Amino acid sequence: MMAKPGIPKGTRDFSPIEVAKRQYIIQIIKSNFEKYGFQPIETPSFENSDTLMGKYGEEGDRLIFKILNSGDYLAKADEKHLTDRNSQKLTAHISEKALRYDLTVPFARYVVQHQNEIEFPFKRYQIQPVWRADRPQKGRFREFYQCDADVVGSTSLWQEVELVQLYDGVFSALGLKGVTIKINNRKILSGIAEVIGASDKLIDFTVALDKLDKIGEDGVKKEMIEKGIAEAAIAKVQPLFNFTGTISEKIEKLSVLLAESEEGQKGVEELRFICETVTELGMNDSILDLDVTLARGLNYYTGAIFEVAPPAGVAMGSIGGGGRYDDLTGIFGLKNVSGVGISFGLDRIYLVLEELGLFPETVSETSKAIFLNFGNKETLYAMNAIKKLRAQGIKVELYPDAVKLGKQFQYADKRTIAYAVIVGDQEMNDQKYTVKNLHTGEQQALDFTALQDLLE
Amino acid sequence: MMAKPGIPKGTRDFSPIEVAKRQYIIQIIKSNFEKYGFQPIETPSFENSDTLMGKYGEEGDRLIFKILNSGDYLAKADEKHLTDRNSQKLTAHISEKALRYDLTVPFARYVVQHQNEIEFPFKRYQIQPVWRADRPQKGRFREFYQCDADVVGSTSLWQEVELVQLYDGVFSALGLKGVTIKINNRKILSGIAEVIGASDKLIDFTVALDKLDKIGEDGVKKEMIEKGIAEAAIAKVQPLFNFTGTISEKIEKLSVLLAESEEGQKGVEELRFICETVTELGMNDSILDLDVTLARGLNYYTGAIFEVAPPAGVAMGSIGGGGRYDDLTGIFGLKNVSGVGISFGLDRIYLVLEELGLFPETVSETSKAIFLNFGNKETLYAMNAIKKLRAQGIKVELYPDAVKLGKQFQYADKRTIAYAVIVGDQEMNDQKYTVKNLHTGEQQALDFTALQDLLE
Repeated sequence: MMAKPGIPKGTRDFSPIEVAKRQYIIQIIKSNFEKYGFQPIETPSFENSDTLMGKYGEEGDRLIFKILNSGDYLAKADEKHLTDRNSQKLTAHISEKALRYDLTVPFARYVVQHQNEIEFPFKRYQIQPVWRADRPQKGRFREFYQCDADVVGSTSLWQEVELVQLYDGVFSALGLKGVTIKINNRKILSGIAEVIGASDKLIDFTVALDKLDKIGEDGVKKEMIEKGIAEAAIAKVQPLFNFTGTISEKIEKLSVLLAESEEGQKGVEELRFICETVTELGMNDSILDLDVTLARGLNYYTGAIFEVAPPAGVAMGSIGGGGRYDDLTGIFGLKNVSGVGISFGLDRIYLVLEELGLFPETVSETSKAIFLNFGNKETLYAMNAIKKLRAQGIKVELYPDAVKLGKQFQYADKRTIAYAVIVGDQEMNDQKYTVKNLHTGEQQALDFTALQDLLE
Repeated sequence: MMAKPGIPKGTRDFSPIEVAKRQYIIQIIKSNFEKYGFQPIETPSFENSDTLMGKYGEEGDRLIFKILNSGDYLAKADEKHLTDRNSQKLTAHISEKALRYDLTVPFARYVVQHQNEIEFPFKRYQIQPVWRADRPQKGRFREFYQCDADVVGSTSLWQEVELVQLYDGVFSALGLKGVTIKINNRKILSGIAEVIGASDKLIDFTVALDKLDKIGEDGVKKEMIEKGIAEAAIAKVQPLFNFTGTISEKIEKLSVLLAESEEGQKGVEELRFICETVTELGMNDSILDLDVTLARGLNYYTGAIFEVAPPAGVAMGSIGGGGRYDDLTGIFGLKNVSGVGISFGLDRIYLVLEELGLFPETVSETSKAIFLNFGNKETLYAMNAIKKLRAQGIKVELYPDAVKLGKQFQYADKRTIAYAVIVGDQEMNDQKYTVKNLHTGEQQALDFTALQDLLE
């Protein structure tokens, strides 16, 4: 049998160097999550369909990968849906499980299911793949990792403060200086909606306002009017069209602008506490900024909203995001559990580090040395050394076949291994190892201790 | 909306302590794979169905989870299969992708697809979940991890030697002493088949022989005769009924027994080289044994066959297995690529370590200290210390809310955090931190340096 090998569109194979680079990022994210007291959980790759369906809107439901029931799945299928060829209605009859679409809904399910074993506030992190039947395009995949940290069970704003620090800590550890951690607050957006007198126009409003850089004040206002926002309403929020200055200045402008909105004022107070405290404590390498157009997941977030932009000059969308949600677990019957969380965009962070040359050289390091193969007698001598080196935690390998030396050197070279160790009769007689530096070509005969020192 | 939260049968949620324990095992396996020169790859969770189907036998095909096509999947469905309600035939029309069933077939696909980027011999490891629609039972799950290391592109028996050492290295590092690494060879089995004059009876023969301990020599012979193996044939392999002694002795017995089988003699030579070399080099904590009844994946392996049994006294099936295969990539059109690999059974190793109490205590360590919350002013002071401690890599956390101290202590206790740090007016005035040891109740006021020294 012969099949042309390939993989489904939107999925990827990762080569050794790619896995190493991804693991490098994941390891830094993980160790920072743990430094901040977050604990790992893992949930199954597939959930019962009713856990996922209806949680991400109609579009989301369509993008969830459904798993076909095993066995004679058509036995239970509704005759009518079959004859009507109604794919949408048939699905529930022939599929009971689906691949997870994100880590948030499974986390909410986990919290509700295990609520009696959990100590609240519960700080969990989760780094696992998710799947979406999205149209694949550059930088958008059907299988990708999410890296989430959330706290549930406390409304304390200190958590928002810590999450900003966590972002700063991870990006600093990655050597990525100058990322902008943008913050906004759902209550500010509600306040603006109140002031412009139209909650249902809020998305149109923020989408238009977000284009200020590109199309200018007149262009934005034109778009707002086209969307049915009254001129008088737009006039009321005129300060948003020149929304510059330090964070403190921006907060003061918002305080004035939203003076009549109780919720808006609450948002201003929350922003003030978070921003002032973060500033007081100091950041490493990141910039905190207030962006009133930030509205990701509007229906989901209830307080702070975060988004992280890569350093200026890198043409790339957000590399992280998150926010406060007040009723995540409500969908599974556990009310009044407030949560706040952030997420890291692994694939995009990878591309940014690649673009800026920020992966350390050691990330691609494989074996420290390769022992060349001169035959069984020599290899037995070599294996004794290899065994002792490995026991010291040193990565070394043996070329398995006694083929021509040129071929063995070529292999070492292509694998970018630094040293080749040569063991022939001479070395066995002298109890030595000839080590060749494959960069410089330099060669020296060492005893075992010197060999170990060199490779350590 | 209200859904009863649960997960699909055969799947698992992993709590923080379970994740930590699993990661502990995986980390040791990984670091040993890398010490031996294996490099990581990752492949997509789902493959094109034709990559997987037909590779695991009829039973395997049934146990592969199929993914329903997105969108109006019935549009392309064959009318006849719908009206016939022929689930089996319809599947190919409504499902193009399937969850991977093991890591071996995706690896073969990877090697063929990327053959021009790979340097052979290619030593790869892969630690990822696989999915099987098996009937769930104790210790058998529908989603579980496989941890595989394989070398393709060389027939050298030194690789078998290294793989035995790798098993020994991993289990030693896990503190698991006394596992038995059982070895056999497909060519020995073929030799036995030749000698008993019936290749088609080989499985019946080994299955019966494997019961020697339980039903005795007469019972085994009775079963063999019932299965249609001639008495004369059984007499020819009489030595197998008393197959004891050292490995060398067993190999000598086989050499005599299989004197007339060319393939059998080849198997004897392979076994001799591997066993003598492993013995010469020495093992740490594991036992090598020759088991002629070992026949896992008979149709798949062509040379060495491995299986690892837990230490005596632990009632558990094999915790690892593997072997040599000569034509894995042939199914995808790349002929003559010999490979050899081993696998670690993560779930069973976990259970064995748990049963024997071999997880180190540090594995469940969470934050080193929790700073209690006395209000915003005190917390700001505390956060300055927390920030500096985290910068030193020390895991510390803040209780987010200024609730009653009793509740905060209770939380620290349930989380098994060792120290609580108390910061009130007194401490702020003295530039100190009061640290309470939550095991002993002992309390002391420390300056920052002493605090850091304590927690480091």
